Amino acid sequence: MSPQVARGPNDKEHSGEGFGGELTLGEPLLTEIDHVAIAVHDLDAAIDYYRDVFGATVEHREIVHSDGVEEALLKVAESYIQLVTPTTPESPVAKSLEKRGEGLHHVGYRVADCAVALQAVKDAGGRAIDDAPRPGSRGTTVAFIHPKGAFGTLIELVQEG
Amino acid sequence: MSPQVARGPNDKEHSGEGFGGELTLGEPLLTEIDHVAIAVHDLDAAIDYYRDVFGATVEHREIVHSDGVEEALLKVAESYIQLVTPTTPESPVAKSLEKRGEGLHHVGYRVADCAVALQAVKDAGGRAIDDAPRPGSRGTTVAFIHPKGAFGTLIELVQEG
Repeated sequence: MSPQVARGPNDKEHSGEGFGGELTLGEPLLTEIDHVAIAVHDLDAAIDYYRDVFGATVEHREIVHSDGVEEALLKVAESYIQLVTPTTPESPVAKSLEKRGEGLHHVGYRVADCAVALQAVKDAGGRAIDDAPRPGSRGTTVAFIHPKGAFGTLIELVQEG
Repeated sequence: MSPQVARGPNDKEHSGEGFGGELTLGEPLLTEIDHVAIAVHDLDAAIDYYRDVFGATVEHREIVHSDGVEEALLKVAESYIQLVTPTTPESPVAKSLEKRGEGLHHVGYRVADCAVALQAVKDAGGRAIDDAPRPGSRGTTVAFIHPKGAFGTLIELVQEG
């Protein structure tokens, strides 16, 4: 069985065309693991590690000023390993490194429409960090979901293009 | 540029057929993000959350006695969200929950041949937890790489079938 959108346990199944901006059963909300983000102190050293050990190479590298980070994206099939390091001490990633050290920081799920997905999360009682979608790296549109209420996992919704 | 296998910075590029069990440039070592594993206290509650919020449903559920865990796999494209909870207090996942709480626990990368990938990791100076591949869930063959020396990330190599 493939993932399907269910807005709540009391929703009735209905097939055929969607109406308005609503999601209907049969449309998966999460279409891909977009990336796993790994917080590191030394971006170049981490890039070297993934190249030498796993043969994974950098497809995209970018400083994201709004998040106070520099990131490198290493492609694995249709997904990315995102190596990320803070560029300022105020960056949330800097605080994460200080508190928890290096390692898995968040997971990004690709969605068809970030605004629709964010609204679906809010409707289902999820706690958003971003009240509305905003620009992410490599031209994406993103929104973060708070780990509190999401079983401790910081989740990013990622819309391409 | 797609991920390619490079055993070290001094390797020369060579194309064509591989020889012996060696990996050659052009063969990606990591073929897919197999799963992101999320440690939770209450597996059923986490399953309900991912169904109600993201419409993701359980494709496979299994108690893995060797690891002291029960896991549920929720399919996203060719990858899985792996929700995992300990079945014994001695489980490494129980210790992780005690120390760090709920959240991202490890990332699994799919590989064509777990033994070849594990050897490549060892050859490149990576630190293995499993000295040899062993059975994982859903009929896979797996080996774990230690987070020390891997920028804080517990990595699992996963061979299907």
